[in-house]
Amino acid sequence: MDEEFSDAEKAGFYKAIYSRRDVRSHFTSESINDKVLTRILNAAHHAPSVGFSQPWNFILIKNQKTKNKIKKSFDIEHLRASEQIEGSKKSEYMSLKLEGILESPVNICITYDPTKFGPFVIGRTSIPETGIYSVCCAIQNMWLAARTEGVGLGWVSILSNKVLKKELELPEHIIPIAYVCLGHVTKFETKPDLERAKWLPRLKLDDVVYYEKWEQKDAPDWNIIQEYIKANLDYA
Amino acid sequence: MDEEFSDAEKAGFYKAIYSRRDVRSHFTSESINDKVLTRILNAAHHAPSVGFSQPWNFILIKNQKTKNKIKKSFDIEHLRASEQIEGSKKSEYMSLKLEGILESPVNICITYDPTKFGPFVIGRTSIPETGIYSVCCAIQNMWLAARTEGVGLGWVSILSNKVLKKELELPEHIIPIAYVCLGHVTKFETKPDLERAKWLPRLKLDDVVYYEKWEQKDAPDWNIIQEYIKANLDYA
Repeated sequence: MDEEFSDAEKAGFYKAIYSRRDVRSHFTSESINDKVLTRILNAAHHAPSVGFSQPWNFILIKNQKTKNKIKKSFDIEHLRASEQIEGSKKSEYMSLKLEGILESPVNICITYDPTKFGPFVIGRTSIPETGIYSVCCAIQNMWLAARTEGVGLGWVSILSNKVLKKELELPEHIIPIAYVCLGHVTKFETKPDLERAKWLPRLKLDDVVYYEKWEQKDAPDWNIIQEYIKANLDYA
Repeated sequence: MDEEFSDAEKAGFYKAIYSRRDVRSHFTSESINDKVLTRILNAAHHAPSVGFSQPWNFILIKNQKTKNKIKKSFDIEHLRASEQIEGSKKSEYMSLKLEGILESPVNICITYDPTKFGPFVIGRTSIPETGIYSVCCAIQNMWLAARTEGVGLGWVSILSNKVLKKELELPEHIIPIAYVCLGHVTKFETKPDLERAKWLPRLKLDDVVYYEKWEQKDAPDWNIIQEYIKANLDYA
């Protein structure tokens, strides 16, 4: 394999980055091909991990009873969250579609095992949270790979980890990091749902970049890149 | 943009996934083109985030004084970590190259701001950690984009967040998530450094996948995919 990326290879990669969506609607009942799902899982498994600890596990779920219980947990947590907002924002919130647990053919719970290859893990000695960060990198690999394969993925974060641990029989020391829904979709939206609904705007790249120090924008060493960043080219 | 990915586009994407490395050696002093660095940052900024909160900031660093202070923090934490291991493992640990702070032309600190668009963030009500998880997804996008652009990236997790906060003047509520080093390299290794050094083996995909429940391998509904997963095809 050539080390450098051709323009076509770069284009394929960036297409995944910019067309990936958090999918809650448009799931079809079409099942996911087993080879495709294997490729998606293998991409996740090839994420970076602190000290090469590979501290993730992937629990594949299609059991209807399990899905129903997770959906029930979503319903409870969703209602509870709505109590934190008032007025028109509340009804807007309640109208948003925020999960596709039952419609998607496959759900996956991604977990973190702090004991794997431990207790001494290279690079995890000063900042123990880096173990969890590795699992998140695996989730992002999975998400991008799914998009590349034409499979929608939605992360359901409105649920109780206590319920997840019970239903999936996770041991005490195993931490659930994400619960995601995968399936083919009738379409991928071109913009995130919450941007389309005008819930929040996409920030400009310039809004999130500082130079040398927090909030520093005045940076003579960086004036060329600042122009590019301010131009805020829409690659998406 | 066509919704489906062509075989060439898929190949470009998977090349990024499988050829990405955590880079500590082989950095050259060649500076990173500003357009290239902008594309890498923009890929990071287009990561998914809970409730579209985009809670990340990227602090670009090339100031030598700052780098020296971070390197000093690495040295202290690295030595401290070595005290946790004994014998041949200790000397092996000390011989590993674990950072490229001074050799790489650009360092980036990626931070999490829990107050952005808050306090009510959709999807962050039950599991507040999802804000941090979003930042990790951005880091993985950055990492893959860097690889695609021929830029090596190494995550330095052996350092003190206290030192980082002080040197970069981060406000109390801002959490540093990662400190990474970027630069062109003489080569990308085909396997992770710690695998090459036989510190730890790569797990098989089958080792990290369960069906329906924790540790469950006996799964009649999943027998076809189990065969593919057990085959452990080396896509890398």
